Amino acid sequence: MSGKIICTGLGPGDPDLISVRADRLIRNARHVAYFRKAGRAGQARRIVEGMLAPGIVEYPMEYPVTTELPVNSPAYRSALASFYDDWAGRLADLARTQEVVVLCEGDPFFYGSFMHLHARLQGRVEMEVVPGITGMTGCWNATDIPITWGDDVLTVLTGTMPEADLTQHMQAADALVVMKTGRNLPKVRRALAASGRLEDAWLVERGTMPGQRVIRLVEASDDDCPYFAIVLVHGQGRRPENEHGGES
Amino acid sequence: MSGKIICTGLGPGDPDLISVRADRLIRNARHVAYFRKAGRAGQARRIVEGMLAPGIVEYPMEYPVTTELPVNSPAYRSALASFYDDWAGRLADLARTQEVVVLCEGDPFFYGSFMHLHARLQGRVEMEVVPGITGMTGCWNATDIPITWGDDVLTVLTGTMPEADLTQHMQAADALVVMKTGRNLPKVRRALAASGRLEDAWLVERGTMPGQRVIRLVEASDDDCPYFAIVLVHGQGRRPENEHGGES
Repeated sequence: MSGKIICTGLGPGDPDLISVRADRLIRNARHVAYFRKAGRAGQARRIVEGMLAPGIVEYPMEYPVTTELPVNSPAYRSALASFYDDWAGRLADLARTQEVVVLCEGDPFFYGSFMHLHARLQGRVEMEVVPGITGMTGCWNATDIPITWGDDVLTVLTGTMPEADLTQHMQAADALVVMKTGRNLPKVRRALAASGRLEDAWLVERGTMPGQRVIRLVEASDDDCPYFAIVLVHGQGRRPENEHGGES
Repeated sequence: MSGKIICTGLGPGDPDLISVRADRLIRNARHVAYFRKAGRAGQARRIVEGMLAPGIVEYPMEYPVTTELPVNSPAYRSALASFYDDWAGRLADLARTQEVVVLCEGDPFFYGSFMHLHARLQGRVEMEVVPGITGMTGCWNATDIPITWGDDVLTVLTGTMPEADLTQHMQAADALVVMKTGRNLPKVRRALAASGRLEDAWLVERGTMPGQRVIRLVEASDDDCPYFAIVLVHGQGRRPENEHGGES
């Protein structure tokens, strides 16, 4: 008997937005693995609540460090590398005989932790990745406003970037998505203001999930922004045939 | 009795990648509408083949012009505006008493034709949009290589843009997606070369669908590129903790 690792994208948070294929794989799984912070339920595990078969074996992969070490320090990098090495080995062993379903929020290949296992497992074990709706797609749908029209340029940034880089990219793009906001929100806000985009920016928290919050960024405070909140600026359409006046 | 318009994102092409929610809505629909070129089956309709209930009423919305008029001409814009006005009116009438499911490839709010109806129907009828996996997400999964790591900047461009703009954006971004390639492929290729990204570019045709083709762009010819093929350049990871050497 030979096994496999199947990473399923869970989409933006609403379990009803999981793909038919991922839904079927998750409901039939005998072994599931997922990332989470130590001592937390984990967002991926929360999305599939009520979907897992009785008797399923769960493998919570707990990140070794969170805020104790600076993210660019050698100690942090080394702890994280060992963590991924370790789990790559454990899942590879298991997948010799079993099918293991790995649960990943959003799409696994878009800023996903699974990619670190995927890189380590190349050639060692059979793998399959099932795409998911990205978190940003769920968030722009939550605003009920299209993100890109015609020839709009969409740029996706991370709030962790230097402020000057953020500003420069914001000036060049039509539509914007800023991931990983959280405590970077004041910096993101300054960059949006410097690039003339602040008035058009939206903040979406818990997009497609219970407690979803969609507000204009100018009305949001910097204090209570979850790390996975997303900032959006919608494109207005570069080409004249996109006469869509009034909808945004 | 009161109706509703529900636009369902179909995802990148594989029907198994439709969301659980959209799948249920499509299978239970009594009225479905979808865009297509005159005389063609239509990609959206093709994706749901075999899923529609017996006796369903279909409303193919056929684009009035394709290549007969220049896309920036007043005549083209006017024909397209009338077409969207007309269908907005027809669907609004129908949705007074019926639930109408509109089928849209990818995600409806990401370069989607439905957005032109959505803008016209604001305040006239109840509407719901169900997100889908974008075509580009399906395509980067088809390459089996992650698209963004760490602080990578992802920029999405359209092959219809001027070459100089393409080059400038390609130089500034880490990861790239170019939509609407087709006959713009020679221009996209020149812009990639000018920005030093050509060697790392991939061409994905019919991503997640039968006949899927994933090749390096340097190995592709300019002759047979479908309009909806996507060009990709994967990010390499901006931050040092993303030590993922060798996977791309």
